[in-house]
Amino acid sequence: MKRAIFRRHGSPQEVIELIDEADPLPGFGQVRIRNKVMTINPADLLSIEGRYGAAPITLPATPGVGAYGIVDAVGEGVSHLSVGDAVLPVGGSLWADTVVVNERLAPKAPPGADPEQAAMMRANPGTAHLMLGDLIDLHDGDWIVQNAANSNVGRMVIRFAREMGLHTVNIVRRADVKAALEADGADVVIVDDGTIDLTAAIRDAAPTPPRLALDAVGGRATGQLAAALADGGTVAVYGLLSGDENSVAARDLVFRGIKLRGFWLAEWYQSATPQQMKDLHAFLGEKLAEGVIHTDVDARYPLSRIKEAVAHAARAGRNGKIILTGEPDA
Amino acid sequence: MKRAIFRRHGSPQEVIELIDEADPLPGFGQVRIRNKVMTINPADLLSIEGRYGAAPITLPATPGVGAYGIVDAVGEGVSHLSVGDAVLPVGGSLWADTVVVNERLAPKAPPGADPEQAAMMRANPGTAHLMLGDLIDLHDGDWIVQNAANSNVGRMVIRFAREMGLHTVNIVRRADVKAALEADGADVVIVDDGTIDLTAAIRDAAPTPPRLALDAVGGRATGQLAAALADGGTVAVYGLLSGDENSVAARDLVFRGIKLRGFWLAEWYQSATPQQMKDLHAFLGEKLAEGVIHTDVDARYPLSRIKEAVAHAARAGRNGKIILTGEPDA
Repeated sequence: MKRAIFRRHGSPQEVIELIDEADPLPGFGQVRIRNKVMTINPADLLSIEGRYGAAPITLPATPGVGAYGIVDAVGEGVSHLSVGDAVLPVGGSLWADTVVVNERLAPKAPPGADPEQAAMMRANPGTAHLMLGDLIDLHDGDWIVQNAANSNVGRMVIRFAREMGLHTVNIVRRADVKAALEADGADVVIVDDGTIDLTAAIRDAAPTPPRLALDAVGGRATGQLAAALADGGTVAVYGLLSGDENSVAARDLVFRGIKLRGFWLAEWYQSATPQQMKDLHAFLGEKLAEGVIHTDVDARYPLSRIKEAVAHAARAGRNGKIILTGEPDA
Repeated sequence: MKRAIFRRHGSPQEVIELIDEADPLPGFGQVRIRNKVMTINPADLLSIEGRYGAAPITLPATPGVGAYGIVDAVGEGVSHLSVGDAVLPVGGSLWADTVVVNERLAPKAPPGADPEQAAMMRANPGTAHLMLGDLIDLHDGDWIVQNAANSNVGRMVIRFAREMGLHTVNIVRRADVKAALEADGADVVIVDDGTIDLTAAIRDAAPTPPRLALDAVGGRATGQLAAALADGGTVAVYGLLSGDENSVAARDLVFRGIKLRGFWLAEWYQSATPQQMKDLHAFLGEKLAEGVIHTDVDARYPLSRIKEAVAHAARAGRNGKIILTGEPDA
């Protein structure tokens, strides 16, 4: 089998490499999966660069948090999965044509789902769904605001919010994405070229002040969102695009009851109950079948061309995600 | 009767003035109170300067959130108070020798309490008690950390925390206050001269990372506290001493589940139930009687010398609070 690893942090294209390993055998309660599709996410690149997560990771390490594969061996004590089942392994270290995981961490792929779309459904659509459902108690007709609205998470937020009866104010940097976001169901799209008074623009756009802000940018954007929220509102930070500290006015925290917190899907999976995971995967499978979840793919690379794949993923101006594929005969 | 007002925002000493008014009559459910003691808090000065609260206030306005007075007239429908009762009026606009308030907003002073200590007990000791009890679920043996630990709130936090079985890391700017804080029950006092690695110092001092940080400073101090907390910990901002925005690293929010929020006693009073208020006042009365609550007074001024009083309150290096007194024969 082949596995991607990095032995030191650095530029993804430089430090990522492919190694050969003996095929692993599944232990008690485990299944062996041949990955057909592996996703490349910004988090993977940040992880290779050493800029992701709470604590340093042990090196060498293998990136990868999303995949679609077929079970080809089961260990003793496995009760729910059989050889031939299509699964979406949970956890990390998935950039490998073969992985062994605990049965519990290999939920079945939605029946009949497109393998690529299924492999991608958990990271971004899952994040969008959980941020709308788990952070505060949102009601039909509530307004929310988000930046980086043209990201994959942002697009999913717009679609899911519309289905929930929520209204969205969406902040983007480029005017040319406005029509696509409106087609997704965006109520308002604000193009922030860095010169506008963003707080005033949000306040003007939303007939009632938003109660939730989703912030993937950070820096002063956090405070601009916070200032636009209704008293008692929450800013949820889930991305680190600006690289700057999140900065909020004390008067918004103290006098207006604004709260600031983070959201991290990996942490959610750590603390979720099996039923919560099942519910999430059922929801995502349903939305995939309905076509509400659809993520564009810009290019596909076999795992053997991993360096080209991460270089492509790191480039600006892509038109979709980069997908790694397992060898056809693996 | 005499009332202090400011007609415009500005330097407290310049804009505060005293006016004469006809004695008010209590309406239905109201009582008239002759204030014997009125407190001057930093919040009062900030309010005069126009730097306090969520929204602009209507001018002219009267400062004052703490007082001790004697009921000298009761309106119809008043059931719990009688002429001669000593009370601690709740709300604002208390810098006046006479006020009329709803009976519900005039809790009785603790029996036999010193009038000055009673007038001061709610603002700072109340804030300290509620921050320790209401923000997160603290357990015996937990560590917390606070800055501005030599403030009146800070000193009360230390004393109440010790009674609750909590351990405190206390950050101050001057080494000469260390002994006093240790006498209050401080486990650790860190003198931050601006050159130390504050996060490392907190981590080194506390055998288990603190779960709660109380921040009266803001700016980069907020992020330094946040970085020292245990995963999932909370930074509660209750002061605006630095005047800077509260800044926190996204990695602490996203990957370590750190939360940032504010605490404001005025907001607590807005949303508290009558029973919660009663419980708070009973607790504070008890701690006053036990001597756990004691606030030093640096000087007393009659209300007629309000300009001197606020000038004194605004000076650095005081040795206690400034108190306003009602006229002896008022």
